[in-house]
Amino acid sequence: MLGLMQDWPLLCHRIIDYAAEQYGAREVVSRSIEGPIHRTTYTEVQARSRRVAQALERDGIGLGDRVGTLAWNTWRHLEAWYGITGLGAIYHTVNPRLFPEQIAYIVNHAEDRVMLTDLTFVPILEKLAGDLKTIERYVILTDAAHMPETSLPNAIAYEDWIADSDGDFAWRSFDENTAAGMCYTSGTTGNPKGVVYSHRSNVLHSMMVTAPNVLDLASTDTIMPVVPMFHANSWSLAFSAPMNGAKLVMPGAKMDGASIFELLDSERINFTAAVPTVWLMLLHHLEETGKTLPHLDRVAIGGSACPRSMIDAFQTKYGVEVVHAWGMTEMNPIGSAAGIKPAYAHLEGSDKLDIQETQGYAPFTVEMKITDDEGTPLPWDGKTFGRLKVRGPGVSRTYFKGEGGEILDDHGYFDTGDVATIDPNGYMKITDRSKDVIKSGGEWISTIELENLAVGHPDIAEAAVIGVAHPKWDERPLLIVVPKPGSDPRADDILSFFEGKIAKWWMPDDVAFVDEIPHTATGKIQKMALRDQFKDYRLPAADVAE
Amino acid sequence: MLGLMQDWPLLCHRIIDYAAEQYGAREVVSRSIEGPIHRTTYTEVQARSRRVAQALERDGIGLGDRVGTLAWNTWRHLEAWYGITGLGAIYHTVNPRLFPEQIAYIVNHAEDRVMLTDLTFVPILEKLAGDLKTIERYVILTDAAHMPETSLPNAIAYEDWIADSDGDFAWRSFDENTAAGMCYTSGTTGNPKGVVYSHRSNVLHSMMVTAPNVLDLASTDTIMPVVPMFHANSWSLAFSAPMNGAKLVMPGAKMDGASIFELLDSERINFTAAVPTVWLMLLHHLEETGKTLPHLDRVAIGGSACPRSMIDAFQTKYGVEVVHAWGMTEMNPIGSAAGIKPAYAHLEGSDKLDIQETQGYAPFTVEMKITDDEGTPLPWDGKTFGRLKVRGPGVSRTYFKGEGGEILDDHGYFDTGDVATIDPNGYMKITDRSKDVIKSGGEWISTIELENLAVGHPDIAEAAVIGVAHPKWDERPLLIVVPKPGSDPRADDILSFFEGKIAKWWMPDDVAFVDEIPHTATGKIQKMALRDQFKDYRLPAADVAE
Repeated sequence: MLGLMQDWPLLCHRIIDYAAEQYGAREVVSRSIEGPIHRTTYTEVQARSRRVAQALERDGIGLGDRVGTLAWNTWRHLEAWYGITGLGAIYHTVNPRLFPEQIAYIVNHAEDRVMLTDLTFVPILEKLAGDLKTIERYVILTDAAHMPETSLPNAIAYEDWIADSDGDFAWRSFDENTAAGMCYTSGTTGNPKGVVYSHRSNVLHSMMVTAPNVLDLASTDTIMPVVPMFHANSWSLAFSAPMNGAKLVMPGAKMDGASIFELLDSERINFTAAVPTVWLMLLHHLEETGKTLPHLDRVAIGGSACPRSMIDAFQTKYGVEVVHAWGMTEMNPIGSAAGIKPAYAHLEGSDKLDIQETQGYAPFTVEMKITDDEGTPLPWDGKTFGRLKVRGPGVSRTYFKGEGGEILDDHGYFDTGDVATIDPNGYMKITDRSKDVIKSGGEWISTIELENLAVGHPDIAEAAVIGVAHPKWDERPLLIVVPKPGSDPRADDILSFFEGKIAKWWMPDDVAFVDEIPHTATGKIQKMALRDQFKDYRLPAADVAE
Repeated sequence: MLGLMQDWPLLCHRIIDYAAEQYGAREVVSRSIEGPIHRTTYTEVQARSRRVAQALERDGIGLGDRVGTLAWNTWRHLEAWYGITGLGAIYHTVNPRLFPEQIAYIVNHAEDRVMLTDLTFVPILEKLAGDLKTIERYVILTDAAHMPETSLPNAIAYEDWIADSDGDFAWRSFDENTAAGMCYTSGTTGNPKGVVYSHRSNVLHSMMVTAPNVLDLASTDTIMPVVPMFHANSWSLAFSAPMNGAKLVMPGAKMDGASIFELLDSERINFTAAVPTVWLMLLHHLEETGKTLPHLDRVAIGGSACPRSMIDAFQTKYGVEVVHAWGMTEMNPIGSAAGIKPAYAHLEGSDKLDIQETQGYAPFTVEMKITDDEGTPLPWDGKTFGRLKVRGPGVSRTYFKGEGGEILDDHGYFDTGDVATIDPNGYMKITDRSKDVIKSGGEWISTIELENLAVGHPDIAEAAVIGVAHPKWDERPLLIVVPKPGSDPRADDILSFFEGKIAKWWMPDDVAFVDEIPHTATGKIQKMALRDQFKDYRLPAADVAE
């Protein structure tokens, strides 16, 4: 027997309709790519997004077609998302930080038919255009006055493109499971794989993050998503800010400390979100200038683990509460946030930081477990670590075109590729990537934990830990270090530095000194390259054990 | 093209699973029907709700079967809801304040197969049992020690009933549109009609009210739903409190001022919700005893219009912020809440009360409009009033067994039966019931507004306004008053009291004096009876106009 409530599909365009109806005058402020600060409202954004839908339809775009965007966070990008999804087409956010050949791969793989691009990326696209066979039209997100000379085929300035439409457009209606957005995730091996968000997953996720326990979003907030729309849906903020009637501030292309500070200050932003790198730049800027953050209440930090010192600096020095969060492109993207549960409400100082340093707990609609390699669930004791797996309406069930094959376990959980502990109160802490964790005699050793300890040594500039084959224990840890300039540390001195800080069997079997550790384009240690470099390395005790 | 996110239906039992996993030790405190305060946790509630599901299954109950509950807010009623819905059966909350014959009608109409009842209602049910042909088993929500002698067929004490189960029960899985709950709404005419909530509507509604803009529910809250679970789902709190990990306090059968105050104080409740009548009793108790409300931050008031003086008393005298809300049994139930939008954030004192006195604005997932009799939308100017209509995933599309026929307009909106204004910022204010509003020369006159004014007259104890047929204007207002004991007001004196306070054409054409105004069981004025009583009344000016 079915319930007798109305069929009201969760569609993205309902969000901008709601914002326009209930919070029409609320501002959307952007740093434009052309330079000046631009001010508009939800009423205007909604009206112009309908014109985007009309322009797309005039270009032959309809239900299920992919529309690429290579763009920073601005009002035009926001309008484009709602226009695209309101037509039933799919926004495909392309990360401009990818290598050009990766951009070409994913645009072709997604079969994008139109590309919306900021001025910034016109030169890249001009070089790639010959390879982008499916793109029929390039829309430059600017006006006629700023339109560049370009070799891009069928190019038009966004303002001219939508000027021919009158905005008299009724949003299309379709099943809430219809695809709304795409984002490719670039693994360390193989080609990038497409994640396809649905209208339902975007809307549910936005309602979920609204909760006081998660991001706590209200109409009285002024929110700046520094995290880009091309980076996992800007953590939902392009949806959840209008859904809650918050004022929205878009930072455009400038994410340096001075530019971010300027907006935080002039727009009186009280909530913002970005990766640690952005906040490092901001904190440097504050230290250099002696400025403070009187308007900012909360900052969400995620994308990579937030250093403890950063949480402490925001909270102690600037009075800004940190919400450490974790998510993935394969999720919508937020999977956990480290708000303080009642069980930990009494904690202060260092004890509170211990909790905030974790990636937090799963909100309602995210199910989480850790398992061993065989899939058996492991206890939530804060010590045992295992493969982190997630399930829920905002988690991928497969990649676009089935790339990568089956990705869920027998119970429908997605393996995140992370290794984590979960404490008795549900707080999850990532200890490693599952391809990096060292398996020694059936037990797991966290390379990240060893590396974090090692860089605390006064003579070590950078450290990496990898597993090296061992005849008795399968794998044992090898510590690879780059000494600080002018220092010449000895292996046994470094190892004695670990004593008492880790379990005895976690002790690296040896230390290798190198001049440089290889990094990826985004600054992460290339463990695969290191494993390759040290594949013939013989640990000192290995001969004895044989 | 569909999105590629997981299929994860929104099912009620996921809420209690989430609460048990993430907030297992969080307390559920109840005033038991037997007397003492009872304390349990979400872990226990979840475990016992699985045993309820097993017990029901043993009794032959399965997907789609209706299970009646005639019960106050306690931990056992809460367990029952999750046990019933986790099995795919349907909780049917019966309002014990209905007349016995109405109770018999709705239980038979719903075809309830099992009835869970508090000790309180055993005597009523014993009288009705002969007529309740579909009930196969009565479960008394108590333990063996308190089990009464009863003539109820196949009766068992709840604790004995679930004692035979081991809790090893896997929740059933089904479509999220499956029916989860039922509640009958009693109109002024005809038989009560059944509203059927779905799992989806319950879960979405709970996520919606969680938002800071609506009820603002967090894990750090201690929440007491005084509003009964049999009254429109206790405004979602039996779902939304566990969903957010809040401590839950259930007041049982005692809702007098002293009992409510005792729990507010001893359990340090910071958020509570009920109808104005309950708060009137509490405010009297506070005045009598000189007690204050140091723990309480917010109170949600709805069910009927909250008097301005009550909002003012809570805020000014006790420092408790009021959230005036509106909803219906035909919704899930909340349709609006009067949080303060940024546009009104500067208001204080009387100006702020003007806003809080409205029924508030629609949250995301509720669409609202006012129309004229022909269905044409009317402007949101705060003055024009029209039929209030709503649409969304938490709004009924039909009644059980199709009673009452088609209830949606051509655009899918449900007519609430209320007449309201909506201001430019979306704040809705109910001005009348559509069957009571007076239509004079094509314009509408609010009877509620005239009545509220009239009772401000020093000589009037109670007042009612009805429309009386008029040859020229179709209808004109007649003011019916009960004078205060010992006073003898004159009609022209009363009418002159209105001058300058209302538009001239709103002025009642005449005043009728009566000893008594008829009321319904719940204390509302029986306008239909009044209209019947005055159906032959001739207004003084009517003859002239003819």
